[in-house]
Amino acid sequence: MELDAVEGIPEIRPGDDLASLVAERTDLADGDVLTVASTVVSKAESRVADLADFPAGPRAEEIATRLSERTDEEKDPRFAQAVLEESTDLVMEEPFLLTETRFGHVCVNAGIDRSNVPDNDLLLLPKRPGESARRIREALPEDVAVIVTDTCGRPFRYGQRGVAIGWDGIPASRDWRGEEDRDGHELAVTVQSVVDELAAAANLVTGEGAGGTPAVVVRDWDFGDHAGSENLFRDLESDFVRQALREWQWEP
Amino acid sequence: MELDAVEGIPEIRPGDDLASLVAERTDLADGDVLTVASTVVSKAESRVADLADFPAGPRAEEIATRLSERTDEEKDPRFAQAVLEESTDLVMEEPFLLTETRFGHVCVNAGIDRSNVPDNDLLLLPKRPGESARRIREALPEDVAVIVTDTCGRPFRYGQRGVAIGWDGIPASRDWRGEEDRDGHELAVTVQSVVDELAAAANLVTGEGAGGTPAVVVRDWDFGDHAGSENLFRDLESDFVRQALREWQWEP
Repeated sequence: MELDAVEGIPEIRPGDDLASLVAERTDLADGDVLTVASTVVSKAESRVADLADFPAGPRAEEIATRLSERTDEEKDPRFAQAVLEESTDLVMEEPFLLTETRFGHVCVNAGIDRSNVPDNDLLLLPKRPGESARRIREALPEDVAVIVTDTCGRPFRYGQRGVAIGWDGIPASRDWRGEEDRDGHELAVTVQSVVDELAAAANLVTGEGAGGTPAVVVRDWDFGDHAGSENLFRDLESDFVRQALREWQWEP
Repeated sequence: MELDAVEGIPEIRPGDDLASLVAERTDLADGDVLTVASTVVSKAESRVADLADFPAGPRAEEIATRLSERTDEEKDPRFAQAVLEESTDLVMEEPFLLTETRFGHVCVNAGIDRSNVPDNDLLLLPKRPGESARRIREALPEDVAVIVTDTCGRPFRYGQRGVAIGWDGIPASRDWRGEEDRDGHELAVTVQSVVDELAAAANLVTGEGAGGTPAVVVRDWDFGDHAGSENLFRDLESDFVRQALREWQWEP
């Protein structure tokens, strides 16, 4: 397996054709996987906004006031409003907003980015990253799978890692159920989240910051002869952590 | 960046020299990263056991009885005993045992594997995987970083992915603090867990099961000119999920 960052992609503007910008700068082949950072997908899809676009309603005012008091850090109620509008559920309200986005991704502040935008205050996540991935994929002449990536933190372990938030042309996971290990025992690990592992791998070569490259091509890797699943985002019933967080009350 | 599975590694036996077994089968160069699956590290370190080695004490009997009743699945109290002996904390007791191992890794059933062992009932995780990584690294003539990997599930997202449980010759994470994005804003993402991302990437090429290869060489990848951190496993204070799970009560 080989991963190559696509070099020389310019600053992305609304309406830019990401598929062409990538295809002009690297040789793609059938079976490759292309990862694209959500930041550039959002810019191409005009998912920028200003705080002034989000006049705070009563719920946002209440959240911002409470968070400001309890964390001793001034919170902007307009930012809370933006987070609420970009979320379908609040998983946790203190000491920060952990949210479910409209497409099922659980992340802090609905993934709204306050850096990475030159002329606006906010960069929102793509509206439906699965559709973004499909559009990019369909605009490429080669048969390439596309993954829209984000980075986020997680419980139990420090640090952020790359994750998939949208994908097309590849199942979310690879199912080893029914297969056996070297000794003939049935495998304990049955569902491998390949799109997340590809996103994590790509994040090693994209870099962050001024020298960062938002697209990576994965070559010579094969999904193999396995069943696949489209499910990546857990539902509440299977997610004990989310159930626990609903009932939990942070004490500063 | 290139990832190559090391082919032809035989079934590992107690006392086997993993460094030689890898070095004989691939060309390593200074700066490469070698990932090794915890299963083979455990086998080389004789971390196999039988259920009979773990006569259940009262706590294990209580856990197994309660879990059997509540989940409607027969649980072996000797297995609960093994999990307790391999753990320093129970993060969650129902509907399954979520544990902290002696080296800080949070995982189900202390990572004890009931497949993957030909002549015993149980395969335990390496006792101190950081030391295992160091021993393998020191036995290699080249200057190669070593990561001992495991696979596990996670909240919010379905499926398992590769994670690091021990490492040597590379910091756990890469710190981008103080660096700026293309537009001169300070970066929002500051700590990138590179050992986990390398473990996830490696898991894409190891495969599971009979055709699985337990070692992967990462070539042409560079940690770069960044500060690093050795911390990977969160402490309780920074881990809201763990705090919430302590108070939570599963209702079947």
